[in-house]
Amino acid sequence: MGQRLTALFVLLILFSDTPMGQRGGAPGGQPRNFIVILTDDQGYGDLGSYGHPTIRTPNLDRMAAEGQRWTSFYAAPLCTPSRAQLMTGRYAIRSGLAAGVLFPNSTGGLQPGELTIAEVLKQTGYATLAVGKWHLGHLPQYLPTNQGFDRYFGIPYSNDMERDTTIAPAEAFRRTMEPKITDFNVPLMRDAKIVERPADQTTITRRYTDEAIAFIRQQQKQPFFLYLAHNLPHVPLFRSKEFEGRSARGIYGDVVEEIDYNIGRILDTLRELKLDRQTLVVFLSDNGPWMPYLAQGGSAGLLRGAKGSTWEGGVRVPAIFWQPGTVQPGVMTGIGSEMDLLPTVARLAGAVVPAGRPLDGHDLSATLTKGAPSPRDTVFYYNGARLAGVRHRSFKLHFAMAAGSGATGAAAIAAPANPAWELYNLDEDPSETFNLADKRAEIVRELTAMMEAHQKTVEPYENQIPLGRGQGTGAGPGATR
Amino acid sequence: MGQRLTALFVLLILFSDTPMGQRGGAPGGQPRNFIVILTDDQGYGDLGSYGHPTIRTPNLDRMAAEGQRWTSFYAAPLCTPSRAQLMTGRYAIRSGLAAGVLFPNSTGGLQPGELTIAEVLKQTGYATLAVGKWHLGHLPQYLPTNQGFDRYFGIPYSNDMERDTTIAPAEAFRRTMEPKITDFNVPLMRDAKIVERPADQTTITRRYTDEAIAFIRQQQKQPFFLYLAHNLPHVPLFRSKEFEGRSARGIYGDVVEEIDYNIGRILDTLRELKLDRQTLVVFLSDNGPWMPYLAQGGSAGLLRGAKGSTWEGGVRVPAIFWQPGTVQPGVMTGIGSEMDLLPTVARLAGAVVPAGRPLDGHDLSATLTKGAPSPRDTVFYYNGARLAGVRHRSFKLHFAMAAGSGATGAAAIAAPANPAWELYNLDEDPSETFNLADKRAEIVRELTAMMEAHQKTVEPYENQIPLGRGQGTGAGPGATR
Repeated sequence: MGQRLTALFVLLILFSDTPMGQRGGAPGGQPRNFIVILTDDQGYGDLGSYGHPTIRTPNLDRMAAEGQRWTSFYAAPLCTPSRAQLMTGRYAIRSGLAAGVLFPNSTGGLQPGELTIAEVLKQTGYATLAVGKWHLGHLPQYLPTNQGFDRYFGIPYSNDMERDTTIAPAEAFRRTMEPKITDFNVPLMRDAKIVERPADQTTITRRYTDEAIAFIRQQQKQPFFLYLAHNLPHVPLFRSKEFEGRSARGIYGDVVEEIDYNIGRILDTLRELKLDRQTLVVFLSDNGPWMPYLAQGGSAGLLRGAKGSTWEGGVRVPAIFWQPGTVQPGVMTGIGSEMDLLPTVARLAGAVVPAGRPLDGHDLSATLTKGAPSPRDTVFYYNGARLAGVRHRSFKLHFAMAAGSGATGAAAIAAPANPAWELYNLDEDPSETFNLADKRAEIVRELTAMMEAHQKTVEPYENQIPLGRGQGTGAGPGATR
Repeated sequence: MGQRLTALFVLLILFSDTPMGQRGGAPGGQPRNFIVILTDDQGYGDLGSYGHPTIRTPNLDRMAAEGQRWTSFYAAPLCTPSRAQLMTGRYAIRSGLAAGVLFPNSTGGLQPGELTIAEVLKQTGYATLAVGKWHLGHLPQYLPTNQGFDRYFGIPYSNDMERDTTIAPAEAFRRTMEPKITDFNVPLMRDAKIVERPADQTTITRRYTDEAIAFIRQQQKQPFFLYLAHNLPHVPLFRSKEFEGRSARGIYGDVVEEIDYNIGRILDTLRELKLDRQTLVVFLSDNGPWMPYLAQGGSAGLLRGAKGSTWEGGVRVPAIFWQPGTVQPGVMTGIGSEMDLLPTVARLAGAVVPAGRPLDGHDLSATLTKGAPSPRDTVFYYNGARLAGVRHRSFKLHFAMAAGSGATGAAAIAAPANPAWELYNLDEDPSETFNLADKRAEIVRELTAMMEAHQKTVEPYENQIPLGRGQGTGAGPGATR
């Protein structure tokens, strides 16, 4: 967001019931600081506390036990739209970032005029840092440092990009499964400058964490917002020497366990600095597991489908909220979305989101702090730029894809082979096994009407995904997203 | 076990390193009492702590958090063989109970000469009670009161039996999905007498628990063994008025949540009587979920297959061990089996299991009390009377069934349509997705040799399953098991 929106910020004391003394953090149990930790392609089932038999995530499981573990929390099915939604609190279709992912030769990105969580907080006096994968545009105007973050350190897109695009798909697949650092010439940036290329991905999880911890230690006077978006466990999978062979789950487990260990380092730092009771920490994944990579892809647990699909396994992600003394511990089965983070964080920080643009997020603060039912009862599913379904309370109306279409990138945003509506009761049937469309025609009608009403509110922004890209650059198993 | 085996019991003081003072319970952290709670057809994924999004099991989850939650714990794929294995510590093939389940007109059962957990403990001075489903024979000689239990209260076989067998399968299915008490004329027995028929299944979970709690309250001077085998959540699903509509998961969730609530009552009683630190409580299910009953069947979570199959979803079950102060809390990813309960309980009670008969169970006591790795590295899979596979450490060699064969009763023990060996690394690939048989021929050879060696040790007992039964009584969706 540029300076021109600054004037729209309205100080909370005029329009909010939060006392002025709580601005930018709080006694009264409101957080002073915010940390959002995002992982990449980690499936719904890839944590101990979400049921994985062999992946050990003691730090995340402790976060879940001490905080809230959500079981119906939604992201978008791919990296770029998911991050657009998280950052803006709006469906990615509204920012032109729904229809796929950005590539190194992309010239599009998240428009500077969009309002990000970082901008909301920065205007309220926060220090802000983005670490890790950005994937919302890597031309200067789209970088985190132009989207509300004071500083940035990370790989600006997926860790499998910048590869030799002339090699055959089978060989590209092999190189992903048996990766060398030099096969993926991705840049590591500090602010707007490249500082390492190819980035040494074997140490990237630790180095991202080091950067995050250094930032936390520096911010003891000012409230802070830390956005830590790990590039892993997206393929190619890399981990440090200390984690090689650590997990019974194999290399995928090694990578997740290294991330978990490093999340533990952050929580330990908060406890050491006595910031744990003043800091809301949110953990979530950006989308479901990437199935074409076999055992190097994750698991959606009992959910159907995977990354790239709008079956639950593509979009329902693990999500944990933690702030001892403030977040009311529990398992939350209500609906939440990554889009809810912006209004929730704004509310808790005492910031007011300017009016005048559609916002799709809901304020979850009463659910977090009092255990109130989630205010969100509806979420729409976008498969690329196409509205593919809606969940309203227990029921999901879904435009069925061809069988297995969730498994391949190219098919994910293609037209469906089987253009039939399916209706599921997700609370009773989380695996989307029993199509109720014929039996519950009245619910099909109600949900269809909700989709139509929603579409009328949506003014798609110019599609950013194809900008700067030639033909035929996204298909096949060597494709990246 | 009759009196003739009594002489074989050898007092621990001669052959064990456990001091005499700990016989029959213990200071020193050994349990004085044992409670084994078994549920029926509850899938691996049907608890909050095993990843279910909407089933709420706070009491079991607390047991898991305070105790050990096992993620590779094995049962048999059907009710009768599973209970035979649990009671005897031996593969069901050794007692003639592997090849299916007993029906009301069956004349076979678990031979009185078999040694049960109850007999081991009774001979060591324990009071013993069986409550709930028995399913190891209902002629007088096979009843719990002739197998080491002082008393018995329960339905002696499955809760869907004793139905009108002349009705067509579709109608039988409908009556199971929309059940009336009177459609299932199952007896409720006290010791060897029928006291109610048909059993009122809407109150059965509560009444079983009442009986269990009354027994616990009576046994404050004598150490006790309580075996509580709930008939539910096997179809037909019944729950009390208080639990109607309680769960977002629908009636299946209502039933599981009522069981969980009643397990909480038992744990509360132990705490109230200050027996919680003196009592080992074990929770497990008897086999995987029963898929033909659609949303009224459970979920195997991320595991493949279901009840009746030797895919993991058929035989890997939730298993929780709890004794505050003695059971070392943790998530245990090593291999365990229901057959391990007998030697483990015997060891902890200071009883010695007589030599002279093959025992397939391992003593898990060091794992429970010290967190040592499980002593079990191998488990064999029986599909009916047929040896269908073996797991050794991470690897499972499995004789593949036809696709979907886990879903129907009739196919489950039929000859496989696709007679191919498949090899999976279960730690890396718990969903049995990636067949490694071609790549790892040396492991296929090693595991094949283990199966051959095992088979040489097995002397099948006379098959009890067909005894007393006519032809054509077990097939179709109305069939019960």
